[in-house]
Amino acid sequence: MTARRGGGAGRSPVRRKASSRKKTASRKKATRKKAPRKKAAGKKAARKKAVRKKAAKAGSVRRGQGAASRRSRSDAESRRVFFFGGGQADGRAEMRELLGGKGANLAEMTRLGVPVPPGFTLSTRVCAEFKDRTGKLSAGVKADVLTALARVEKIMGLRFGDPERPLLVSVRSGARVSMPGMMDSVLNLGLSNHTVEGLAKLVDERFAYDSYRRFIQMYADVVLGVPLDRFEIMLERAKLGAGVSLDTELEAADWRALVSDYLDAVEAHTGQPFPQDPRQQLWGAIAAVFRSWRNDRAVAYRRLHRIEDAWGTAVNIQSMVFGNMGDDCATGVAFTRNPSTGESNFYGEYLKNAQGEDVVAGIRTPQPINASSRVVGSEDLPTLEAEMPGPYAELTRIYKFLEKHYRDMQDMEFTIQGGTLWILQTRTGKRTSHAAVRIAVDMVKERLISREEAILRVDASSLDQLLHPTIDQSADREVIARGLPASPGAAGGRVVFSAEEAETRSKAGEKVILVRIETSPEDILGMHAAEGILTARGGMTSHAAVVARGMGKSCVSGCASLAIDYAAGVMRVEQHVVRDGDWLTIDGSSGEVMLGRVPTATPELGPEFRELMRWTDRISRIKVRTNADTPEDAELARSFGATGIGLCRTEHMFFQPRRILNVRRMILARDMATREAALAELLPVQREDFEGIFRAMEGLPVTVRLLDPPLHEFLPQNEEDLAAVAQSMRLSVQDLKNRLDALHEFNPMLGHRGCRVGVSFPEIYRMQTRAITEAACAVEAQGMKVKPEIMVPLIAHPGELSWLRAEVEAVVSAVRKEHPGTRVRPAIGTMIEVPRAALTADVIAEHADFFSFGTNDLTQMGYALSRDDANSFLPDYIEQGILRDDPFVSIDEEGVGQLVRMGAELGRKTRPRLQLGVCGEHGGDPQSVRFFAGLGVDYVSCSPYRVPVARLAAAQAVARGREESA
Amino acid sequence: MTARRGGGAGRSPVRRKASSRKKTASRKKATRKKAPRKKAAGKKAARKKAVRKKAAKAGSVRRGQGAASRRSRSDAESRRVFFFGGGQADGRAEMRELLGGKGANLAEMTRLGVPVPPGFTLSTRVCAEFKDRTGKLSAGVKADVLTALARVEKIMGLRFGDPERPLLVSVRSGARVSMPGMMDSVLNLGLSNHTVEGLAKLVDERFAYDSYRRFIQMYADVVLGVPLDRFEIMLERAKLGAGVSLDTELEAADWRALVSDYLDAVEAHTGQPFPQDPRQQLWGAIAAVFRSWRNDRAVAYRRLHRIEDAWGTAVNIQSMVFGNMGDDCATGVAFTRNPSTGESNFYGEYLKNAQGEDVVAGIRTPQPINASSRVVGSEDLPTLEAEMPGPYAELTRIYKFLEKHYRDMQDMEFTIQGGTLWILQTRTGKRTSHAAVRIAVDMVKERLISREEAILRVDASSLDQLLHPTIDQSADREVIARGLPASPGAAGGRVVFSAEEAETRSKAGEKVILVRIETSPEDILGMHAAEGILTARGGMTSHAAVVARGMGKSCVSGCASLAIDYAAGVMRVEQHVVRDGDWLTIDGSSGEVMLGRVPTATPELGPEFRELMRWTDRISRIKVRTNADTPEDAELARSFGATGIGLCRTEHMFFQPRRILNVRRMILARDMATREAALAELLPVQREDFEGIFRAMEGLPVTVRLLDPPLHEFLPQNEEDLAAVAQSMRLSVQDLKNRLDALHEFNPMLGHRGCRVGVSFPEIYRMQTRAITEAACAVEAQGMKVKPEIMVPLIAHPGELSWLRAEVEAVVSAVRKEHPGTRVRPAIGTMIEVPRAALTADVIAEHADFFSFGTNDLTQMGYALSRDDANSFLPDYIEQGILRDDPFVSIDEEGVGQLVRMGAELGRKTRPRLQLGVCGEHGGDPQSVRFFAGLGVDYVSCSPYRVPVARLAAAQAVARGREESA
Repeated sequence: MTARRGGGAGRSPVRRKASSRKKTASRKKATRKKAPRKKAAGKKAARKKAVRKKAAKAGSVRRGQGAASRRSRSDAESRRVFFFGGGQADGRAEMRELLGGKGANLAEMTRLGVPVPPGFTLSTRVCAEFKDRTGKLSAGVKADVLTALARVEKIMGLRFGDPERPLLVSVRSGARVSMPGMMDSVLNLGLSNHTVEGLAKLVDERFAYDSYRRFIQMYADVVLGVPLDRFEIMLERAKLGAGVSLDTELEAADWRALVSDYLDAVEAHTGQPFPQDPRQQLWGAIAAVFRSWRNDRAVAYRRLHRIEDAWGTAVNIQSMVFGNMGDDCATGVAFTRNPSTGESNFYGEYLKNAQGEDVVAGIRTPQPINASSRVVGSEDLPTLEAEMPGPYAELTRIYKFLEKHYRDMQDMEFTIQGGTLWILQTRTGKRTSHAAVRIAVDMVKERLISREEAILRVDASSLDQLLHPTIDQSADREVIARGLPASPGAAGGRVVFSAEEAETRSKAGEKVILVRIETSPEDILGMHAAEGILTARGGMTSHAAVVARGMGKSCVSGCASLAIDYAAGVMRVEQHVVRDGDWLTIDGSSGEVMLGRVPTATPELGPEFRELMRWTDRISRIKVRTNADTPEDAELARSFGATGIGLCRTEHMFFQPRRILNVRRMILARDMATREAALAELLPVQREDFEGIFRAMEGLPVTVRLLDPPLHEFLPQNEEDLAAVAQSMRLSVQDLKNRLDALHEFNPMLGHRGCRVGVSFPEIYRMQTRAITEAACAVEAQGMKVKPEIMVPLIAHPGELSWLRAEVEAVVSAVRKEHPGTRVRPAIGTMIEVPRAALTADVIAEHADFFSFGTNDLTQMGYALSRDDANSFLPDYIEQGILRDDPFVSIDEEGVGQLVRMGAELGRKTRPRLQLGVCGEHGGDPQSVRFFAGLGVDYVSCSPYRVPVARLAAAQAVARGREESA
Repeated sequence: MTARRGGGAGRSPVRRKASSRKKTASRKKATRKKAPRKKAAGKKAARKKAVRKKAAKAGSVRRGQGAASRRSRSDAESRRVFFFGGGQADGRAEMRELLGGKGANLAEMTRLGVPVPPGFTLSTRVCAEFKDRTGKLSAGVKADVLTALARVEKIMGLRFGDPERPLLVSVRSGARVSMPGMMDSVLNLGLSNHTVEGLAKLVDERFAYDSYRRFIQMYADVVLGVPLDRFEIMLERAKLGAGVSLDTELEAADWRALVSDYLDAVEAHTGQPFPQDPRQQLWGAIAAVFRSWRNDRAVAYRRLHRIEDAWGTAVNIQSMVFGNMGDDCATGVAFTRNPSTGESNFYGEYLKNAQGEDVVAGIRTPQPINASSRVVGSEDLPTLEAEMPGPYAELTRIYKFLEKHYRDMQDMEFTIQGGTLWILQTRTGKRTSHAAVRIAVDMVKERLISREEAILRVDASSLDQLLHPTIDQSADREVIARGLPASPGAAGGRVVFSAEEAETRSKAGEKVILVRIETSPEDILGMHAAEGILTARGGMTSHAAVVARGMGKSCVSGCASLAIDYAAGVMRVEQHVVRDGDWLTIDGSSGEVMLGRVPTATPELGPEFRELMRWTDRISRIKVRTNADTPEDAELARSFGATGIGLCRTEHMFFQPRRILNVRRMILARDMATREAALAELLPVQREDFEGIFRAMEGLPVTVRLLDPPLHEFLPQNEEDLAAVAQSMRLSVQDLKNRLDALHEFNPMLGHRGCRVGVSFPEIYRMQTRAITEAACAVEAQGMKVKPEIMVPLIAHPGELSWLRAEVEAVVSAVRKEHPGTRVRPAIGTMIEVPRAALTADVIAEHADFFSFGTNDLTQMGYALSRDDANSFLPDYIEQGILRDDPFVSIDEEGVGQLVRMGAELGRKTRPRLQLGVCGEHGGDPQSVRFFAGLGVDYVSCSPYRVPVARLAAAQAVARGREESA
């Protein structure tokens, strides 16, 4: 925007070095030069700090200082427009709520002496007032804007609307939290039929008219609501007329003609000429940005990302700088470390003679800023380091300074105009999970941050990415449907529609994806055989989701748009037809369902990951156990750092083919003798199961839950199985069907299950207790340490537990007599998963050695939400903003969480050392783990693949607590 | 037992008038004479009272008195054996816990001067010690027994074991609460081969040996465990040998021979001769009675009646008196008022020359004691009044005195021996509900008791008997099965197996009993048409039970022994086969199912009932509303005193044939237009419903609950309906079936229902709100006062209510605009029926004008108990003693009740004047009503027939509170 070619405009603030403008400019220069040099900046900061410290030490608040801080506070409270530029700024980094992330950052960088184009920020308060005033800016705010604008003009040596030396500005949104692309911006504002001529004289005509047409198009779209396609059609027509195919091939005259067409089009659409008064343009753009806070996509984005509507956005008006004014101009993006790998290399890309939007458009291949930024496709391109060594050196100084200042990896936007470097933005850079871990650990080693900070730096829920295959993000893919991201990881295989088919094909060496309307416990083996599971029904804690997470299998559940026809072996999704045997890829981390074979990648766990995990265990106050039903799962979880089994479900063992018939005979028995005969056959196999698990968890506690689900879950569903069971029980198929009918329940979740089965058929629990105790004695005899814990499910009333405890104790004591000298003496405790149990936990604790909160069921009952049915209406709730979270994913702290709190407090009132655990799915959810840690539980238990997540979350709970109290 | 014929035994305490024994006897006589004369007794009591009052007024406790009371207290604490006789007694009426009901009463009567045969009581402490000492009496207790026995001997002028003048005693149990027939007794104890001769001389030989053989038989059975049938066989053989058929025809010699046979039989069975030492007999009998506290039937009875095992029984040893010593002897039972009708007439029956057991045996028809006691069959028999005017006059004096003393109707046992009256027992008499009401009200008028006492005298749950037909207890009946007493009243009719059939036959004028495995909402009209409902499945709050209670229909539910075959039109119960069209009678008050036609009786509500109800309303702090869905129900409930409708369920209205098709179209609609078209057709009929209800409840509040049940409850089940719906919706039957499958839920209770339907399909709630508001405006326009309240069901989260409240308010405000000047402005509130709602009630209250606790669902979710499925295991729980109550019948105070308490407290914390109601089934259960009253709710709501029950229970809550604080 300066007389780069027009020559001699020594006053241009862009060509700062040539500028001779008095105080402001020279001071700015000085600051800029000083700032990136860390010693100087460091000293300054240290001095400031020392002063503050001294003041604090002195113990008495000096009147002047107190008044000053009061004044600045009240100043900040009443101020609406915050100037930044020339090394001075009204705002600070901490003022994100008021200035938005962008505004606060620009102010902070300016204060730090980083070369930032000057400008000012309208605070989020103006956004609220703007709404209250039904879309009008107050006269006061307008006056403040003009005052600030004058300061910008002074620094830049340009004037807004000046036909000779026009100041151009950008008008951008900037909320407390980044909402990329959701709100509107206007660039090059200040151009008009008059000022464009000044710009043409200062730079050149082609640049000036290209800039003007960009401005008209953007302003017409954002402020005036003129459809964008009109301009695109005119542009295409112009290119056709000129016989060229690229924008860059158009001449100055073409742009000038196009500008004229654009202006006519705007007038035709709005009935008004395009505003030529830059101030009018400015008021229009500010209003449009504030309005865009409430546009549909912004509202949708906020709902999705849980951003409060009331926060509002700030508006940043900033002097334009241009990376497209010639070959000594450039624009780019840089990361202070590699955001994919986390390596400590300065990393970035740029385009010469280009504007930011050109980088985004992706028409030209960006160049690497240095050798370590080279990627596939940019191996041979020249680097910024080589092409513009001066600006690169300054950028290097600045990045080092900024990373040190913010103590985190930064993502910076920069523009070089006529050889001068401008920093447009810096913010904490997004990174892959892998990079997050590496950066955090490296920074500890570099003494930039503490271990606790490192622990807080890694998003616990993102660790899943490190443990599961992911979709190769660069690959082409056709997403045909989207369900719930029920169990992370990507998986591909041939579609099968039955568990049996999954087993058969998997044994034949094929990879399969099991597609079901919903899964049931009898599908377990097929699920195990499959690469991934896709269901049309069921939520985040449906059977498919829970089991898949336990197995570490990818699962997309509740994908309602699927129409599955088992009989025809076909699944329809909109126009797509997927047949038995077709390839399908699913991404259980995103919920996406893709046609065909999409490449996946399996990240490796680096040494930094192990280091980080070691740190977590050092500060955690709670342990992490695992939910595991097999020795394999137990070993896997142990390798992830599990310190015990918090939930070993015995029922999953019941579905193996060699057992299920006996299980069914046991359930359907009409008399005790038949039932006991069936149980006698189950005893040795259960004992064998437990032996394997006890061995795998040698020395660690293993909590075994006695049989829990409603019995009818185990019963035969198809004619073939019916016939087999009927024959083995010497019943007619009809008799058997009648028996099954009698076992049918309306609400099985609230029916005859859990300890109720144990009361009706105590022989079942007796068999299980015997199997557990005998297995423990056997493993002990092999010289290993065993810590079995027997857990009674679904206790609602203390009477149940007292009755069943007596049953269990009698068996334990009988087995102990058969094994003289054994030290095996299982702890006996209960799930707290029924609201009534939480309410009466003080009495229940009289009969329990431990509690384990079953937060899945506690949520189902506390919330009256069936996890298998909720998916039919929970999406409506989220959409309407009635609920923000799926309470099956993160514990509902205000409601169901209160039952956990009550249960914990009442239980410990009776037994101060009562062991408390959590074994619901929430045990693997970081947010929930933090909540549980706050309640003082001893451990959480989760599926093996969530163990690292929970360990990190548990450590974060402590770290955050310390941070907050500090 | 005295020388009635043996002459001259002037010392006999039985022939008291002839007795000249010094102090004790004469004092006794004096007392006895004085006691029944109320003036004297009244004066004495008044004097005592005055002394006590004076002492209390004086304010200082006199040392002497204090010491005395301390002494008597410590005396009572250490004493094990409590003597009574000759006007003196160690015990008192208040010592029931220690002496049992019988012992305390005998002591009290003795103190009052009533002629009671002397004796003594071994306290319940001895029972506990007896158990601790593994079945042995301590030496101290034995010594005390002998001391007391000596005092009895002195009074009676007889000696225990004396061959000339033997004292005979009875040994009987007596617990804190009467357990009739559950424990053992031994009479005539003290007879032996020696003493029987003395008795023969004193009375006559036949009497003596008859008494001896009775004693041997009883002692052998109770103490020695000899099977009774042996004695019966010998007796039969003796009668055969003598050629007679009645016991009374046997001669003295026959009895003597039989005694010898009996003694041989005992020795043959036990290997020991029959104990001839009366003391040994006594220790054996006492031990046997203590042991009988733990016999199977006593344990079962206690479990059934919730009597604590630890209470133990006392043992009463009392001098025998005989009503079978000749024609101047008699034995009988009398009530101070008529126990069936409650009329204030002395009422009773007696047998001349007989023992108590003869009255029970029912071989001879008892004679009426006076003219007002004559019943069918005893019209012509002579009365006691006529036959023994002296004893009758004394009995009259005594009964008046006792009723006045105990301030309640008494049930007395008496024996006249040789013209002398003895009172063996007096206790509060059992009575019919009808009599209970009348007696209570009469006694208030007689100034015997206060109104509050009268209110507490009537068992609230028994009021059902007054409102429903009952089985004629004298009728023969064959009970073939027993289910849950789900809805009271007896009903008979022909069996039908479908609701349609019930409607058809009922229209044809037949009485029918609808028999179903279970009922569903579409059976409503058939249920309405039937006399009663019988189901094989479902608990006390199953669909059938709830609906039947609402309709006031008899219902027996969960009758598991029924095997119903709809196709064959047949129901099997054990060996019985009941076919379609057969007569069946059910008793919903007892749960009995009877073959054929059993006569029933419908009691009338007397003026006393209305009077009592008026009193309840005067002291109640809470109101009673009703659950009613039709104008008819509303009117009925109003006639029973309901002060509003607490729950008007709109869904029941949906099942009427002219509506159901539109309801189904609404549910199955795939688009808003179809749904709104169906809703538009439903609007006028719903409005009509509400108009009728508002008119019926003019001036009283009516709470309408918006649609609650899962939508699939309304959907067609059979092929015919499916076809009809498919046609009307222009869908193929298969498409419709797929749609139905998609709506299927695993746990509908926790699924898409209640306000969740309102969120998914707000147009349904909008239609209902419009119907309610328009109806209110229409009725208001007719000059009536309307108080509609709109209730949103199944709120779990404040966000739901805030969202729906806005929806409802918008419709209300639109309708109000269409009716300028209307005062209709419905209150908007919510059910609290989800545990989470109770836990977050403070926040929910911000959006609610009122709360109504839905304790059915709160129990289902708080307890994790499906009311439709619980019956498969709850009986096991009750049987095992794990639970004492069905939590659907009486609110579970410790668990679910805490949620109600929390909800009430949190709600009122936010809105101190928040209206609180209870509309679950518990609203009609007396125990629960008391609990709710204690929580400060404003009203309970229950089915029309339970309204009087709830009103009485509400008043009792206040009366009991006052009694306890007094």
